[in-house]
Amino acid sequence: MALWPPTTERVIEPKVSVPVFNHGHVMLEDWMGNDLYIVNNARVSFDQESTEFGEKEAGLLNFLMKNQHGSPWESMVMRFDIKAPLFVIREWQRHRIGSFNEQSARYSEIPDDFYIPTRELVRTQKGKPGAYFFETIEDDTVAGYALEIIEIAQQTCFDAYYKLLEDGLAKELARVVLPVGMYSRMKWTVNLRSLLNFLMLRNHDHAQREIREYAWIIEQLVEQIAPTAMKVFNDNGRQVP
Amino acid sequence: MALWPPTTERVIEPKVSVPVFNHGHVMLEDWMGNDLYIVNNARVSFDQESTEFGEKEAGLLNFLMKNQHGSPWESMVMRFDIKAPLFVIREWQRHRIGSFNEQSARYSEIPDDFYIPTRELVRTQKGKPGAYFFETIEDDTVAGYALEIIEIAQQTCFDAYYKLLEDGLAKELARVVLPVGMYSRMKWTVNLRSLLNFLMLRNHDHAQREIREYAWIIEQLVEQIAPTAMKVFNDNGRQVP
Amino acid sequence: MALWPPTTERVIEPKVSVPVFNHGHVMLEDWMGNDLYIVNNARVSFDQESTEFGEKEAGLLNFLMKNQHGSPWESMVMRFDIKAPLFVIREWQRHRIGSFNEQSARYSEIPDDFYIPTRELVRTQKGKPGAYFFETIEDDTVAGYALEIIEIAQQTCFDAYYKLLEDGLAKELARVVLPVGMYSRMKWTVNLRSLLNFLMLRNHDHAQREIREYAWIIEQLVEQIAPTAMKVFNDNGRQVP
Amino acid sequence: MALWPPTTERVIEPKVSVPVFNHGHVMLEDWMGNDLYIVNNARVSFDQESTEFGEKEAGLLNFLMKNQHGSPWESMVMRFDIKAPLFVIREWQRHRIGSFNEQSARYSEIPDDFYIPTRELVRTQKGKPGAYFFETIEDDTVAGYALEIIEIAQQTCFDAYYKLLEDGLAKELARVVLPVGMYSRMKWTVNLRSLLNFLMLRNHDHAQREIREYAWIIEQLVEQIAPTAMKVFNDNGRQVP
Repeated sequence: MALWPPTTERVIEPKVSVPVFNHGHVMLEDWMGNDLYIVNNARVSFDQESTEFGEKEAGLLNFLMKNQHGSPWESMVMRFDIKAPLFVIREWQRHRIGSFNEQSARYSEIPDDFYIPTRELVRTQKGKPGAYFFETIEDDTVAGYALEIIEIAQQTCFDAYYKLLEDGLAKELARVVLPVGMYSRMKWTVNLRSLLNFLMLRNHDHAQREIREYAWIIEQLVEQIAPTAMKVFNDNGRQVP
Repeated sequence: MALWPPTTERVIEPKVSVPVFNHGHVMLEDWMGNDLYIVNNARVSFDQESTEFGEKEAGLLNFLMKNQHGSPWESMVMRFDIKAPLFVIREWQRHRIGSFNEQSARYSEIPDDFYIPTRELVRTQKGKPGAYFFETIEDDTVAGYALEIIEIAQQTCFDAYYKLLEDGLAKELARVVLPVGMYSRMKWTVNLRSLLNFLMLRNHDHAQREIREYAWIIEQLVEQIAPTAMKVFNDNGRQVP
Repeated sequence: MALWPPTTERVIEPKVSVPVFNHGHVMLEDWMGNDLYIVNNARVSFDQESTEFGEKEAGLLNFLMKNQHGSPWESMVMRFDIKAPLFVIREWQRHRIGSFNEQSARYSEIPDDFYIPTRELVRTQKGKPGAYFFETIEDDTVAGYALEIIEIAQQTCFDAYYKLLEDGLAKELARVVLPVGMYSRMKWTVNLRSLLNFLMLRNHDHAQREIREYAWIIEQLVEQIAPTAMKVFNDNGRQVP
Repeated sequence: MALWPPTTERVIEPKVSVPVFNHGHVMLEDWMGNDLYIVNNARVSFDQESTEFGEKEAGLLNFLMKNQHGSPWESMVMRFDIKAPLFVIREWQRHRIGSFNEQSARYSEIPDDFYIPTRELVRTQKGKPGAYFFETIEDDTVAGYALEIIEIAQQTCFDAYYKLLEDGLAKELARVVLPVGMYSRMKWTVNLRSLLNFLMLRNHDHAQREIREYAWIIEQLVEQIAPTAMKVFNDNGRQVP
């Protein structure tokens, strides 16, 4: 059983809701710009403009990435619809350059969708500070027991939550008993430069496996709308320009 | 029983850890600048500088606030140490202008500190969409029962969490069962302009009672280090410059 | 002769280069989103979505504006191509939320396009600190003389610049003699929330007449792609949400 | 004659106005934080705190830099007072993370301080696109002539400017004839992370020689208040964390 990579047995393309884990999804809803856009934002330095994307333009993208000319990459903007567990959303929202709108638990009742890992993601942590890594727990009894606890504990939280609501408690207060494995939904508007920073950090070995799955899907999607940008990002060591 | 204002029976001053709710705190650890600072950032427009803060300077602060000259307010910067429940921290971290460092649940074990409201904060929601308000639940039986559920549900979460750790589950995964009422600790570095925006939104009738208590304490603290700034903020309708 | 409003005798519409002053232009090149977009970013709070923009949606936009719910307005993004005098560009680039790419004077030679005001914009300043206003200089001799100085001084700068280049001076150094009236070109990618802040400050009586002309044109353009957003912005006192 | 490094024959230390070129200066006026600060912002991840800065703390700073843990570096904040030519200020203000207040040419008369390079900075550009470099012009006649043009052209601008003011033209309009070599003054409040990005780009071989002199001085200053932070920045290839 391997922690990585994720299964590719699903359609991953723009404008389609891509399923993630037991209740999540990612959808690239809309975008402005493409490889040529970035080129033309850079070319304005010389008061020039390209009308087609050819080899010269690909070379310029590579030059911009290599030499860390960052601002042209901000001209391409994307909007995603995302459903993810709270602990994933918490890491996501630490990325400050971009815009979030999220489902509120103050004024709407939360459905009992919560995260249960697949068997292979039931894992243990190894290594030492600064160099941790993770391995699937091989023992089926231990893993099965852990999965049960993860399910029962969260279901108990939701039961308590619905009981509190029934008794008239304000939603904003009742939610304190909800688990951080609960799913939440959000919109994310972000430019390509900030998104590359997200991919560098989150589609990375050191990232938590769950957010990495989301980041990995997002990377597949962006590769379809800005293929050369993503190619030069990878060719130049995945550093943010 | 009243939802507001919070009790003043505690010392609220800079460089002191101010207790909040059952396990939280706020401490204004350090700051750079004061009323005079803001004045001198504005005066650079005319290549001038004040050495003392007098009536003229107070008048200028009022003028800047009233006419929404925003950038001088960014010259004053503060650093806070905060311990708060996760649902409070989640709202807090939506404020993107400023810097956060927060306790990680990936690599350290979380102590079982979780939020239990005081009796008067056990509340119900009234009103209609766009105009909700909250009232203490008067019935002691209902409130007592709610408090029990809030405590037991969260304690159960932590028991499950420790059991999962015992069984060798990675901390980053075990945490999915923790409740959003759990406390977390963070550092917040923020300039006065962004902080005024925080106060406008969070020390406000529409804010959730819990984050408002934190915002209210922060406002008491800032009033002690930038009294005129805070005065003109209030005098001009608490709009962010 | 009136300083305001600007002439409407030109086509102001998206994807068309709108001429501004003697050498400038504004073009709304592309955008992502519209009124409905903003609504749906707000509706995600309740895990809901609208498919059409009707009266209810207009009402929600008004509610969001009135109650300063800011983040949904960040979901709409625009890209402009702009040519403007340097003193206008300098004010423009103080707006930090958004992305600029600008023509460089380090590596490309600057053509001798510089700003000459129209007759009615040859103006004097009246009033007192904090309450200045401007009036066209009525005396044709004085105004004519001023226009001559403005033209000759700037032409002299460009002559010196070309002479320095001819003598082999690096472009980045030769440019020190160029006038702040010189035109420069840039791309601007900006979300609607930041753009409303720009319009509040720059399409305003207190703004310098020249940048106001640009801001006014931008406002005409945005009204064509997000009419209800702009209507509620105006209906609610042109405060940024 | 060498373009680099700048002379060290001046006092470069905090709270002292350091002269730059013929009319400029840099002063590190105030700051909040130091090496230990950054450590403690990182240590909050583990709910820990250091009270002294020793070898362990230095090691942690190195780890943070190497592994690009960026947010702790935002906890240290500095405020500078700067006087620089406009073409330097223009590049400076493209750095969006931080706060500027600048002298206004709308409401105050600008003194005739303008930039004249030293003899060795009278330079020519060599190389080809993407790989330019600069060399002092060796021919004294050519250089002397260039210096004369630079001086006379800018003085002519200021003469025209004062003439326009005399004739009653509004300051905001008269300034269009001022040269981009004119000096302007500003305050800059910036955190260490953003400042490291500034140093990476501007105290760099590819930066224009003039802004590099400012960046170089700023680097000397910051080394005195956060020596280990600057050491690990250099040890790890001057990449921004």
